[in-house]
Amino acid sequence: MNEIKIFCPATIANLSCGFDVLGLCLDNVGDEMIIKKSALKGVRITKIVGANLPLETEKNVAGVAALALLKALNSDAGFEIEIYKKIQAGSGIGSSAASSAGAVFGINELLGRPFATKDLVPFAMQGEKLACGNAHADNVAPALLGGFTLVRSYAPLDIIQIESPSELYATVVHPQIELKTADARSVLKQNVSLQKAIIQWGNLGGLIAGLYTKDYHLIGRSLHDEIVEPLRSVLIPGFDVIKQTALENGALGSGISGSGPSIFALSKGKTTAYKIAKAMSEVYDQMQLPYEMHVSRVNPDGVRIIEN
Amino acid sequence: MNEIKIFCPATIANLSCGFDVLGLCLDNVGDEMIIKKSALKGVRITKIVGANLPLETEKNVAGVAALALLKALNSDAGFEIEIYKKIQAGSGIGSSAASSAGAVFGINELLGRPFATKDLVPFAMQGEKLACGNAHADNVAPALLGGFTLVRSYAPLDIIQIESPSELYATVVHPQIELKTADARSVLKQNVSLQKAIIQWGNLGGLIAGLYTKDYHLIGRSLHDEIVEPLRSVLIPGFDVIKQTALENGALGSGISGSGPSIFALSKGKTTAYKIAKAMSEVYDQMQLPYEMHVSRVNPDGVRIIEN
Repeated sequence: MNEIKIFCPATIANLSCGFDVLGLCLDNVGDEMIIKKSALKGVRITKIVGANLPLETEKNVAGVAALALLKALNSDAGFEIEIYKKIQAGSGIGSSAASSAGAVFGINELLGRPFATKDLVPFAMQGEKLACGNAHADNVAPALLGGFTLVRSYAPLDIIQIESPSELYATVVHPQIELKTADARSVLKQNVSLQKAIIQWGNLGGLIAGLYTKDYHLIGRSLHDEIVEPLRSVLIPGFDVIKQTALENGALGSGISGSGPSIFALSKGKTTAYKIAKAMSEVYDQMQLPYEMHVSRVNPDGVRIIEN
Repeated sequence: MNEIKIFCPATIANLSCGFDVLGLCLDNVGDEMIIKKSALKGVRITKIVGANLPLETEKNVAGVAALALLKALNSDAGFEIEIYKKIQAGSGIGSSAASSAGAVFGINELLGRPFATKDLVPFAMQGEKLACGNAHADNVAPALLGGFTLVRSYAPLDIIQIESPSELYATVVHPQIELKTADARSVLKQNVSLQKAIIQWGNLGGLIAGLYTKDYHLIGRSLHDEIVEPLRSVLIPGFDVIKQTALENGALGSGISGSGPSIFALSKGKTTAYKIAKAMSEVYDQMQLPYEMHVSRVNPDGVRIIEN
């Protein structure tokens, strides 16, 4: 195999009570990448379509992630990467993670899979470090592995794949405003009340239990964020109305995707997910706020090969 | 049925990262109660063996829990309760909860089960309110339901039964010191760092996932308490040595049971649990500190009928 074309999915991190630990993978929202073996040693980004991003390998998240993988393998192989961006940067659904995850997944395939997919996470995290200064795994883990992933620990890195029911759908609306991750982080407080933290981990326990037992009601009852959402949601126009609208239209729960500004809702079944999308659209239409809307089932597989 | 004899199990609450939400039920550690129907309306505590506790119904946790149940049923039935205490008060393994849970379970049986067992939790919580001022469910829920229970929420009350692997054993050592719940609570801080809270809910997520997937290693990796154990463990003589000894002898994890002073260790299999008990004993023997030692599998059923 000398060339591979892959789909690099968008992801929802900071899933309500799972702030900084729990994320999920989307199915029909994502970038595409073409990666080719090259006679020339090293990694070159040869084409970027759909976004104004740096072509220099060391300044591109896909490039940095790819270099981290090759360094670990002590490999002098060469690769050319074409990136077809469909996920907007700064949307809060893992745009940089999709590129980082795609690069390491694709190169690992072309090299005959020296690493298990799970072991690619640390390399993709290097792309995240370039993107936001923090080598977090919240988005690259679900992008690579699919489904729901829990980052139990960073020291040592411990990623847990969480089983989830098959009828779970996400509706994601991305209001076209700029919300920098740094600004979204600056509203956080260093300390939280023990009382709220206990509510948060009770809900996270309920959410994990609901996913394993396919108990949609329990999933819904648990999808609350006591700590971060109240601080961040004020940065997102119409957040309260969008969330309320989602719940009134059958969502199990709703919250901020990543560090925003995208807002997600989870629901049982495609019909409800589209109904929520329609209702959310009406809210932003009325506010005359431009937006992108996505409806996707939870993608159980993560990055996938389109052609090779 | 006019009379029932029941086993009322001890329980471990505040299970490491599951502070205030997660507890488990023990199997061969507990009280016994005999409850009889009486022609005389109301609830009377007729005998208490093994502890110096009040016989007045309104001052006894079993009495208060029983009255709460009868009030909800608007019942004018009469009952006599005999309590054979084997769990020491103030041990941190749910002594008051065993009596509260036993009273409501037994009376509910004698009345032909007007309530499902799960719905008895709020009545048993009234006994906890008398015992410590706080109507918590951490111990009465696992005592009534068995296994691991998660108190996801108090408003509204939402108790989740968590599946767990069958080979899980607990070793519990109870150093014979007095540690009042009020003192154990007073060392807590009202605020915690967000960073530590995230580690805590990551671990709780991992623990719940480990229980569902019967992944003993994951259970072990997740059994950490970042927040409460560092503050409370200093109140328990030898805590660090006992915990370290448990881990060195094969425990998956170890921590404070309830609000102490008992220390628990979880392990896979009876042999390891007894090995840990022996090693813990040697530590306290050397310190010349009196203790009680318990080894028990996780009790999947909760309160049970011995005779009726």
